[in-house]
Amino acid sequence: MQRKKSKIKSSADICHVGIDLLGSDTPPNELLEAVVAFKEQLEPFVQLTLFGLRDLAHTALPDGVFFHTASQIIEMEDDPLYAVRRKKDSSLYLGVQMLKEGHLDAFISSGNTGALMAASKLLLSTLPGVDRPALLTLLPTRKTEIAVLDVGANTSYKAKHLLQFALIGAAFQKSRGIDLPKVGLLNVGAEAKKGTPELRTVYESLKKMSSPPFLFIGNIEAREVFQGGIDVLVTDGFTGNVFLKTAEGIAVVILDELEESMREQEFSPLNLTLTKLRHHLHFAKYPGALLAGVDGIVIKCHSNASFDSVLSSITSAVRLTQHHFLDSIKN
Amino acid sequence: MQRKKSKIKSSADICHVGIDLLGSDTPPNELLEAVVAFKEQLEPFVQLTLFGLRDLAHTALPDGVFFHTASQIIEMEDDPLYAVRRKKDSSLYLGVQMLKEGHLDAFISSGNTGALMAASKLLLSTLPGVDRPALLTLLPTRKTEIAVLDVGANTSYKAKHLLQFALIGAAFQKSRGIDLPKVGLLNVGAEAKKGTPELRTVYESLKKMSSPPFLFIGNIEAREVFQGGIDVLVTDGFTGNVFLKTAEGIAVVILDELEESMREQEFSPLNLTLTKLRHHLHFAKYPGALLAGVDGIVIKCHSNASFDSVLSSITSAVRLTQHHFLDSIKN
Repeated sequence: MQRKKSKIKSSADICHVGIDLLGSDTPPNELLEAVVAFKEQLEPFVQLTLFGLRDLAHTALPDGVFFHTASQIIEMEDDPLYAVRRKKDSSLYLGVQMLKEGHLDAFISSGNTGALMAASKLLLSTLPGVDRPALLTLLPTRKTEIAVLDVGANTSYKAKHLLQFALIGAAFQKSRGIDLPKVGLLNVGAEAKKGTPELRTVYESLKKMSSPPFLFIGNIEAREVFQGGIDVLVTDGFTGNVFLKTAEGIAVVILDELEESMREQEFSPLNLTLTKLRHHLHFAKYPGALLAGVDGIVIKCHSNASFDSVLSSITSAVRLTQHHFLDSIKN
Repeated sequence: MQRKKSKIKSSADICHVGIDLLGSDTPPNELLEAVVAFKEQLEPFVQLTLFGLRDLAHTALPDGVFFHTASQIIEMEDDPLYAVRRKKDSSLYLGVQMLKEGHLDAFISSGNTGALMAASKLLLSTLPGVDRPALLTLLPTRKTEIAVLDVGANTSYKAKHLLQFALIGAAFQKSRGIDLPKVGLLNVGAEAKKGTPELRTVYESLKKMSSPPFLFIGNIEAREVFQGGIDVLVTDGFTGNVFLKTAEGIAVVILDELEESMREQEFSPLNLTLTKLRHHLHFAKYPGALLAGVDGIVIKCHSNASFDSVLSSITSAVRLTQHHFLDSIKN
């Protein structure tokens, strides 16, 4: 097999996903191998373009997998704005640029979050009515999966941004087949007067807006979220990031401790239960976070990106493309 | 046994703990019974005064347990300032008053958090150098227990308040025998520049202050907290409350789901593991939150207070008294 350069503009029939191999904690060659192995499980209409340095350019690739050579890497420590201005031949920048030009339908990166946001804001416009994009992630609960946003794009916010997040989150869940998504506002208590003055403003505004395209069910405490029952959890980027990482941290500790005690006992039926639960709850299984609110499908994976996160993001990107998420959010 | 009224000023030998039976989701008579049963497990020098309505005043009580009659209840929905002004014969207000007057060494309530804070701020002065009290709670990690504050007393804050919380938290851990407590600042990343402008100011100030009585180890992400290794986690009341309730919510869901699958399998050794883990991680086992920074030991339990939370708070109150926590924090 020969190395191919992606020159084809993606047609209605083909779903073309770009993957950044650089800038994360995972060695690029290992990520490449995992993606290539995963290609077989994908529908034939899915094509992949991998972005990496020249050293990987000569790897033999199967049909439908392309390689695009970059000469720069945006590192985790790089200042986002500096990186976006000075590293225009980086894998991250090139990927977003190809998305903008229509050569890709979606782009996935595990690199510098700030730089991915900056490049996306610079190259792809924000959608009508959206001032700021938000990072949106799907989390498991006892019942259905909940879309949480913002989980880290913005550490400061105004009330209007959280209202926009509610609309974006509702559009996302509609594209997943939920007709009238239930929206909750993350707060320290259920009563209307709880939280900061900004949150009280958001509460009142969401209450007025509550009607299709979504149903506002009020404030929700972090404790209740995992019981399930709502579809969209609205919060600011600082709180959402703490929420997400707390959930991840405690889940990892509990499952690890259980696994340790089970290893001592070697009782397989329960190991199976545990494996199932780990699969259900381990957040690395979840497809990273969607940079929602820009005119393009950009997904950010964990930077200590397990392969699972990248592979699951590919599936997620394909689904979002097939279900016309961007059109749904524009309407 | 006769009902006795607490008139004795607590001496150096006696540790006198007050318990509010009203204002929570737990029926007062059931809480009374649980406390009375628990009394036997306590050292003889611990005396308890229960605060409730007249209907419970005639219950037979063992030696060392007293009853103080209140005529009012501060409800969960009451406005804190209104309640404190108008309900001076409520169990909550009377308890804080008796603490101020030296009839009690500590007071425990599962009632209205805002009212408990308001009464404490009004009747007990804040400690020298402390502008605002904070709710402090101990959380389990993989290694040692961590003191987290503020977990909900204040939803807005300035940098100086978080510095005070660091000092209060360090004094608390010193009173538990940790010579040089390690203090971390909850943030969305480890780098100094992460988070809001206020957090960057707090980071720089803590770095300058870092020396005995504590060691500042920098920003810490929520994900890392449960791996253990730090003794005090400093955060604002909004973020801390979300952090605490997220941890609680996800732990409950995981342990419940595991318990369900195990019930089907009836395999006892693993049920034992699970029970141990639940005991280690279930946050209701933990002694509620200490209202730290006021001149008195006031503990707030979960409002859906399991008995465990109240009983464990009694033990905690006794320990704090015996270890002269207030003196330690004043120094």
